[in-house]
Amino acid sequence: MFVPDNVLYGIHSLRAKHNFPITDEKVDHAVIQSYLQIKKAAAEANELAGTLDKQKSTLIMSACNQLLFSNDYSAFIVPAIQGGAGTSTNMNVNEVVAQLAMRLGTQSGNEPVEIKPNDDVNQSQSTNDTYPTAGKMAMLKRLSPLLTSVSKLVDSLTDKADEYKSAIKVGRTQLQDAVPTTFGRTFNAYASMFKRDILRLKHAQKVLSQVNLGGTAIGTGINATDDYQDTIIPILNKYSHLNLHQAADLVDGTQNSDAFTTISGAMKSLAADLSKFSNDLRLLSSGPQAGLNELELPKKAAGSSIMPGKVNPVIPEVVNQVAFEAIGNDVTVTMAAEAGQLELNAFEPIMFKSILTSEMHLTRAIDTLVDNCVSDIKVNVEYCRNEVEHSSIAATVLSPLLGYEKTTALIKEALATKQSVKEIVKQKQLLPDTLVDNLFTPEVLTNVSKVKDERTAAGSTLN
Amino acid sequence: MFVPDNVLYGIHSLRAKHNFPITDEKVDHAVIQSYLQIKKAAAEANELAGTLDKQKSTLIMSACNQLLFSNDYSAFIVPAIQGGAGTSTNMNVNEVVAQLAMRLGTQSGNEPVEIKPNDDVNQSQSTNDTYPTAGKMAMLKRLSPLLTSVSKLVDSLTDKADEYKSAIKVGRTQLQDAVPTTFGRTFNAYASMFKRDILRLKHAQKVLSQVNLGGTAIGTGINATDDYQDTIIPILNKYSHLNLHQAADLVDGTQNSDAFTTISGAMKSLAADLSKFSNDLRLLSSGPQAGLNELELPKKAAGSSIMPGKVNPVIPEVVNQVAFEAIGNDVTVTMAAEAGQLELNAFEPIMFKSILTSEMHLTRAIDTLVDNCVSDIKVNVEYCRNEVEHSSIAATVLSPLLGYEKTTALIKEALATKQSVKEIVKQKQLLPDTLVDNLFTPEVLTNVSKVKDERTAAGSTLN
Amino acid sequence: MFVPDNVLYGIHSLRAKHNFPITDEKVDHAVIQSYLQIKKAAAEANELAGTLDKQKSTLIMSACNQLLFSNDYSAFIVPAIQGGAGTSTNMNVNEVVAQLAMRLGTQSGNEPVEIKPNDDVNQSQSTNDTYPTAGKMAMLKRLSPLLTSVSKLVDSLTDKADEYKSAIKVGRTQLQDAVPTTFGRTFNAYASMFKRDILRLKHAQKVLSQVNLGGTAIGTGINATDDYQDTIIPILNKYSHLNLHQAADLVDGTQNSDAFTTISGAMKSLAADLSKFSNDLRLLSSGPQAGLNELELPKKAAGSSIMPGKVNPVIPEVVNQVAFEAIGNDVTVTMAAEAGQLELNAFEPIMFKSILTSEMHLTRAIDTLVDNCVSDIKVNVEYCRNEVEHSSIAATVLSPLLGYEKTTALIKEALATKQSVKEIVKQKQLLPDTLVDNLFTPEVLTNVSKVKDERTAAGSTLN
Amino acid sequence: MFVPDNVLYGIHSLRAKHNFPITDEKVDHAVIQSYLQIKKAAAEANELAGTLDKQKSTLIMSACNQLLFSNDYSAFIVPAIQGGAGTSTNMNVNEVVAQLAMRLGTQSGNEPVEIKPNDDVNQSQSTNDTYPTAGKMAMLKRLSPLLTSVSKLVDSLTDKADEYKSAIKVGRTQLQDAVPTTFGRTFNAYASMFKRDILRLKHAQKVLSQVNLGGTAIGTGINATDDYQDTIIPILNKYSHLNLHQAADLVDGTQNSDAFTTISGAMKSLAADLSKFSNDLRLLSSGPQAGLNELELPKKAAGSSIMPGKVNPVIPEVVNQVAFEAIGNDVTVTMAAEAGQLELNAFEPIMFKSILTSEMHLTRAIDTLVDNCVSDIKVNVEYCRNEVEHSSIAATVLSPLLGYEKTTALIKEALATKQSVKEIVKQKQLLPDTLVDNLFTPEVLTNVSKVKDERTAAGSTLN
Repeated sequence: MFVPDNVLYGIHSLRAKHNFPITDEKVDHAVIQSYLQIKKAAAEANELAGTLDKQKSTLIMSACNQLLFSNDYSAFIVPAIQGGAGTSTNMNVNEVVAQLAMRLGTQSGNEPVEIKPNDDVNQSQSTNDTYPTAGKMAMLKRLSPLLTSVSKLVDSLTDKADEYKSAIKVGRTQLQDAVPTTFGRTFNAYASMFKRDILRLKHAQKVLSQVNLGGTAIGTGINATDDYQDTIIPILNKYSHLNLHQAADLVDGTQNSDAFTTISGAMKSLAADLSKFSNDLRLLSSGPQAGLNELELPKKAAGSSIMPGKVNPVIPEVVNQVAFEAIGNDVTVTMAAEAGQLELNAFEPIMFKSILTSEMHLTRAIDTLVDNCVSDIKVNVEYCRNEVEHSSIAATVLSPLLGYEKTTALIKEALATKQSVKEIVKQKQLLPDTLVDNLFTPEVLTNVSKVKDERTAAGSTLN
Repeated sequence: MFVPDNVLYGIHSLRAKHNFPITDEKVDHAVIQSYLQIKKAAAEANELAGTLDKQKSTLIMSACNQLLFSNDYSAFIVPAIQGGAGTSTNMNVNEVVAQLAMRLGTQSGNEPVEIKPNDDVNQSQSTNDTYPTAGKMAMLKRLSPLLTSVSKLVDSLTDKADEYKSAIKVGRTQLQDAVPTTFGRTFNAYASMFKRDILRLKHAQKVLSQVNLGGTAIGTGINATDDYQDTIIPILNKYSHLNLHQAADLVDGTQNSDAFTTISGAMKSLAADLSKFSNDLRLLSSGPQAGLNELELPKKAAGSSIMPGKVNPVIPEVVNQVAFEAIGNDVTVTMAAEAGQLELNAFEPIMFKSILTSEMHLTRAIDTLVDNCVSDIKVNVEYCRNEVEHSSIAATVLSPLLGYEKTTALIKEALATKQSVKEIVKQKQLLPDTLVDNLFTPEVLTNVSKVKDERTAAGSTLN
Repeated sequence: MFVPDNVLYGIHSLRAKHNFPITDEKVDHAVIQSYLQIKKAAAEANELAGTLDKQKSTLIMSACNQLLFSNDYSAFIVPAIQGGAGTSTNMNVNEVVAQLAMRLGTQSGNEPVEIKPNDDVNQSQSTNDTYPTAGKMAMLKRLSPLLTSVSKLVDSLTDKADEYKSAIKVGRTQLQDAVPTTFGRTFNAYASMFKRDILRLKHAQKVLSQVNLGGTAIGTGINATDDYQDTIIPILNKYSHLNLHQAADLVDGTQNSDAFTTISGAMKSLAADLSKFSNDLRLLSSGPQAGLNELELPKKAAGSSIMPGKVNPVIPEVVNQVAFEAIGNDVTVTMAAEAGQLELNAFEPIMFKSILTSEMHLTRAIDTLVDNCVSDIKVNVEYCRNEVEHSSIAATVLSPLLGYEKTTALIKEALATKQSVKEIVKQKQLLPDTLVDNLFTPEVLTNVSKVKDERTAAGSTLN
Repeated sequence: MFVPDNVLYGIHSLRAKHNFPITDEKVDHAVIQSYLQIKKAAAEANELAGTLDKQKSTLIMSACNQLLFSNDYSAFIVPAIQGGAGTSTNMNVNEVVAQLAMRLGTQSGNEPVEIKPNDDVNQSQSTNDTYPTAGKMAMLKRLSPLLTSVSKLVDSLTDKADEYKSAIKVGRTQLQDAVPTTFGRTFNAYASMFKRDILRLKHAQKVLSQVNLGGTAIGTGINATDDYQDTIIPILNKYSHLNLHQAADLVDGTQNSDAFTTISGAMKSLAADLSKFSNDLRLLSSGPQAGLNELELPKKAAGSSIMPGKVNPVIPEVVNQVAFEAIGNDVTVTMAAEAGQLELNAFEPIMFKSILTSEMHLTRAIDTLVDNCVSDIKVNVEYCRNEVEHSSIAATVLSPLLGYEKTTALIKEALATKQSVKEIVKQKQLLPDTLVDNLFTPEVLTNVSKVKDERTAAGSTLN
């Protein structure tokens, strides 16, 4: 195998490319970026600890800076799906940084200085600690926009709840007509659900911020000085703007993968919530003639190549699919986590790929959902109100007055005779007319006096 | 369909039994028990609210008490897997309580009083709010022993870590020999992992304690008085000894199922952790002659019907299987949660069954793991020390002194010539003999001075 | 540990009960029954091979017969979820058969004869070969009724297709109105789908009928005679009425679990199909007033404890849940299969439990679906025809005549002005009136002349 | 939104790009290629049916040819994950083909001819039929190399079985020492397993070859002539070199997705098999000093950035991860299939992406497994033979002679006293010395006379 002269990577990188020809996708840029921040911080920490001379550390840090700011990832050739527990990725970074540092050294006009990938760039480090750390950093970086997007969705739903606060509609349980409700409550309920997703993601964020950097091989800290171990995390936080903490138990931090099942599980819950919400949107907007027809989603695309004028709920549909993908990814992550053996989990690469993909796709799916769908939803207010007025099941309000059995009989009669229950009750003089009229107002039917909308809007107490 | 005279259940229960002949398993007793506590609390709250007369409420509460204390569940005939979003379960409880209450009324010598399942026992309630509440109560009741068991496992592992604090062993990454470690660290690392499982379960516990009781149909609170809504939760807490909170958004509390994906996801992470730990135990105790042979698990059963003297790691094996079951159950729960539509999720029965089963099986699996395995594990201390002494990879300590490349060459030579690296270094006079002797002591090899065991023992900072 | 005098099981069974207190569920009776048939066949084969004397074999066979016909499984105390790769189950059967055989010997008035569980009842056998064989036999026995039930569902759907052959309805893609179709086609399409499920199950049946009996320990055949190996399968087929084949590669037959992922995967496909079908039934029967209202499912239960007169689609709902369970079980089976190591898979017990449960639950779910739902479905024929007549999207038929763009404009105009496209076309004189009238007949709209119903009814060519 | 002049795609493609910004990955080239073959075949079929004039069909076919042969996919801008059930993909192809056809028309020097995406290129077609057909074609094209790769793996394993036919080794069940076996049997058993994977994939291939082309909207065949429907499949087979069949029930062929769960399920079984095999390779090659050390895998990469000389089983590790991915993808596919509603499944895009990815990754993973690992595996023959000679469990051969209990006692004594069972038996004169010597030969121990290797090599009878 032959490494061309003009490239920054070395033989270990090239071997990985040949050994793992599974996907054309390279290691996620967020992982490489985090790795470069680690290498930069390690050079500084090693210099401070007195184990790396200043000339070398300066060149290594310059090389990292150049790679970080250039946005050119062409030297990082290792495929995203790889064996070796991330060693190839670390080697690739070590080789590229060492090679570039040496070139910078030569360009400076000084004596050429040899910078070794393993002895210098990787000093005080192991793949065992840098790889999980870089992976968690990448996940944390991608978690922030995801949290922002979920918040945006919550806001958008809260706005819709305000807009349609008193838009009355038929409730449905098990797809059968139930007592009336309002779109205010409906949109609020989705918002409440997604607020809990924010809590779940933040719990995972806390777990992910515990890193094993400094643990070197299998968490023993072998070949790292005490000084390095004490300074590496603060220095890395300075460069990464993350709030990382060194795991109290570095051995545990190296071998166990439950941080990954935690973030993946939180995304699985989010995915199920998004899919349920999307299903509801698609169902409520079914039509335009032979459907429920309660909502109008913004029209985003011609819906058919053969049926003219057809418009489909394409945005919720893409969200459903991203949800199915994230739920499948969770199974992949779970199996990979379970398969870890003894002092290391060799299957972190597929966990990283799966989690980073789910984070990105969910973020983008929510963004298109908010921007291209939720924010422009229209409720067919009159149509919905009309449905409530003809709904027999609204007669549930009579049950405390007439009893469950008598009310059942009235509703059956109404459905069979296509009359309204209200009329029948009046005809039969079962209750005073004014009381009947009062009971069948939207306010009583949707029980607004009891379940205060303010309480609903106040959101979950679960903070 | 004919309801026999001598039974407590009624026609709705019987119909359910005939409609859903899927499994012979009835609704989990923990759900029935919780339901009875709800009915009792509701009778009290309705009486206080002035909507149920004292005679009726007293009889209903007596009936509930009798059923709760008798431990006789024979009247609850509805199968665990059922359609109808729990309505059959609620109807079964309503019918049984009403019938028994009337019998108690007759026995008291007073005038017979008619107690109606829907108008009286179910007053101010809907399946929509009682069923999810009873399910969450049952899950919470079963979560306590699970938390206790995980804590017991943590304690048992911490004890083992103390017992084998300085038992040195070969570390392994990717099943290949790595730098040495100790069984103290190994057992501690498992303990650290399971501590995070406790945190995850407690997060889920908090989510589960939010209930929608008082929301009646689809969270509207229809047919419930303000007084009832204000008192029902405190009364229920009094009887159930749980710390339930009324959801701020009752509509959300009725329709969304993410509380269930949360507890299920937390158990999925626990399951993956338990399975990884069991895999390690089985691997480290492989042998007795042609295996790794580092651990001896207590012998619990003859291992083979044909191979005499064989003993197998049967306890970790059963734990693995319970883990696989819980991970599969998580997929079931996720699909059921995702499939909820509009104002209700009709698929709570299978979620309840799956979650309650996982909770019970995981609890029992951990108990047998602690009692029949972990607490009596023996380390083959001498064998493990001997392996370290012959391990070439321990020469990693030379890397900062001789460089990665030269150390690589030495290790390859040692493996090829079946010498120890220590000997070769001395022969070649690469380093002073005293330094070499010093480096290859267990203390340096396992880096005890750096990764302080106290720090490890201090546990996770993630509290 | 103490074995009472009056029981048939022995110490190994009792240990298992104590070691594996996970579930109260015992080993599936279908597995025990199959095991008893194996023990009976083995006794006969060993006698023929001359390695077991006639007196012993006769007693063993009598004991098996008595247990098989008594339907009393109380002596089989080993829990369904167990460690030890089935050894406890085999030991339990060996102990019970040996004990009962000795009792029968004593009862006969002859000299007492000692029958040993391992040397006599288990002769020429290992758990390694008997346990997977008994599991596959149990699965095959339960597969027959499942196949019968799927066929019954196909027949029921075909009957419905005939009944509603020409009932025209609005088609829907992505929940939006599409070109018209008929309920004949709709029901036929479901039937066609389930026919492929039969093919998938039959493929799995073939795979399951390959057993490793005769392979004894790890497929070597150690301690079994050639004569035994040659006769055991035909004798077992005689007693079990199954059509088993001895695996050509007994080592493979012992260690690999893909037969189990095959049957589980086939059931996963069936589950997804059943769930999709149930979703459609629930959707098409939504209402009664504010839903699609195209189908009426038989009313099987009161739908709500609070909302009088409500009726829900409880049968499809229970089918959905069984489907989610079977899909979750498939993940459990896959993980257990993947986790097998070297010459054996130790996780067969959870695979057996999961597969046997899915088989039974799917069978029963389909039975209740056919008997309590599909066979009595009514189509709201007039309502559906009326919907078609008002459907703008039916104007797709104009596209080849007027072009996609002009037809799009017409449909938009129709929807906006609440006219029918047919009227507008006539008004604008875009096409001759007779042609327009012709095009908008049900026959042309549903294209009956082209997609011949006979072809549809003829079923899949995939046989 | 503005379509630049110089591009081939149109406004519908551009809208899709903006609506679905989930992934940067475009629609799989195999799908686009299949779509172009469909458009070409449809143009020919429409011309034959007399509904498309020759000039247009010639230009459309030329445009398809040019796109097929240029290998330039830059005009196909629709993202792989998309809403709309594939409509955007179809529209993109229609727009590009129409635009290019018109340009070719202009270049020919003839009068410019207008070719319309929907009326001409999409004539007699719908997304409903072309999209699933193109997806199945793509899957079939990718299935062929997968089948080739699995066959290559089978061959490689059979070669290894021949090479190490008589290499005796300790068997292991549940990771504990079991009776001896040979590497010939071991490698053969893997080959036998993968042969069944070929059968499963071929079953899926058959299912996938049934396509609904000709069904147009929801399988009605609306707007397609009889002539077109009769000729489209043979013409498409001519251009695609596939052996497609028109589904007998086109409605079913349009709405049901079990073909996708079938291929995905077959790959799930393959993935579990590959992962089990990889686990075994990693375990048997563990070491080099403190592991099982029975196999030597080819060294493909430096194993550690910090531990010099370490070599890891990187190829099996990458295979494990591809397997976990494929199993996760199967859950995604199952959920997407289950979520289909009424006359169409809107979630085919994520099914296509998941299945096509699994096919490609599994193919490549197997290729690297064969080329970089299996074909160069070495068995440590002497080491393995030595282990057998010291294995007490080999004394299982004594059981038929001495009984299970006495043999158990002998083995326990041997393990406790570190003697061999053979010696003890001789010392105690339990059996004639010559018999003992005979029994403990490799031939008897591995039972070669009974389980004929020829039979093993003959492979499965399951063909």
